[in-house]
Amino acid sequence: MKAVCLLSGGIDSSTCLGVARREGFECYALSFDYGQRHRIELQAAARVAEFFGAREHRIIPVDLRAFGSSALTADDLAVPKHRSAAEMTQGIPVTYVPARNTIFLAFALAWAEVLECSDIFIGVNAIDYSGYPDCRPEFIEAFERLANLATKSGVEGSRMRIHTPLIKLSKAEIVRLGASAGLDFALTHSCYDPDQGGRPCGQCDSCLLRRKGFQEAGLRDPLRYAE
Amino acid sequence: MKAVCLLSGGIDSSTCLGVARREGFECYALSFDYGQRHRIELQAAARVAEFFGAREHRIIPVDLRAFGSSALTADDLAVPKHRSAAEMTQGIPVTYVPARNTIFLAFALAWAEVLECSDIFIGVNAIDYSGYPDCRPEFIEAFERLANLATKSGVEGSRMRIHTPLIKLSKAEIVRLGASAGLDFALTHSCYDPDQGGRPCGQCDSCLLRRKGFQEAGLRDPLRYAE
Repeated sequence: MKAVCLLSGGIDSSTCLGVARREGFECYALSFDYGQRHRIELQAAARVAEFFGAREHRIIPVDLRAFGSSALTADDLAVPKHRSAAEMTQGIPVTYVPARNTIFLAFALAWAEVLECSDIFIGVNAIDYSGYPDCRPEFIEAFERLANLATKSGVEGSRMRIHTPLIKLSKAEIVRLGASAGLDFALTHSCYDPDQGGRPCGQCDSCLLRRKGFQEAGLRDPLRYAE
Repeated sequence: MKAVCLLSGGIDSSTCLGVARREGFECYALSFDYGQRHRIELQAAARVAEFFGAREHRIIPVDLRAFGSSALTADDLAVPKHRSAAEMTQGIPVTYVPARNTIFLAFALAWAEVLECSDIFIGVNAIDYSGYPDCRPEFIEAFERLANLATKSGVEGSRMRIHTPLIKLSKAEIVRLGASAGLDFALTHSCYDPDQGGRPCGQCDSCLLRRKGFQEAGLRDPLRYAE
């Protein structure tokens, strides 16, 4: 059975791909070159797609910089560093990219329809996350409902499923799940603001969440951080 | 008040933009260069955006050819011609582009969020249409629901509205509405398969629906057809 798997190259989506594989899906990995400042994550995505034997890996260019307004896509906004867990959960951060998951899932839906497959995997997480509205279970449920109305296959009676195996896990549980699915974490990339050499900063929300996850899981993070 | 208006350059979306203007919205027109064989429609969109005084007109490149599988985006599939009304309403035609309106609305949502506007106009129509699943009222309602869960503004309490002023109109009624909104139909383009010079074929579903609309409205279509 085929599945379209959204893959950024971070530990969440990489673990999600590993889970899809373990469940026996033939995986079609989908990444986006959307003007992200941490574009280097696409190399990680390619490594992970190969590692887990994805049948195909596509990188779709999507210019989200055209709209700006996120620290991930606008050069004039800085990525916040050294934030505490309390600060991270206060409101929606500047790294939020407007409607990003809606756009990514819409493309996944298009590919799923062409592949005649009715399963989409996305590694969203609503526990140790950055407060993005489009990572919440109610968003995913609404998208699944939409998917079944939006497409030919939906009309013809096949049921689209949006799988979110990570949605209720803590970052530590995700790290453990990734490890149990055999993920080589050295292949992944999480940092929003890597240095020229691609080394993770260690202090952005994404690095801090990752480090906390490994620490709490009692596992070693193979990445070397700048700070 | 601002509104994002999806604009293909055909009579439906052009009429829709005219309606948004007449309702007093400051319009941000959004078009897509998605690998459509009738790419010439983007010139029509630019003319219409200027005609109705859109505050801005953006054309986003989106490679839907990457997925193929529609006569509008795959060179090896022919656009059907000379189909009867009965044939047009039998099932979903080969010109259907997988998840197109989901993708277009997702981008509109991203722009709306950046503009801090809560109104999106789309000229979908579920009466004289080509049987596309993503033109139906239940699809639009599901997207509106999604939009209010997907975004920062939704979370913060502002309500996103997807306006579909044409959804229950016949093509003849759309032509009359366009005329009443002052639309110069000579600026528009509807054909899926124009000739090298940009002249509409006159026989694809889109041309046939347009011609029928003008005929039933008792108005003259200013376009010159190849056939």
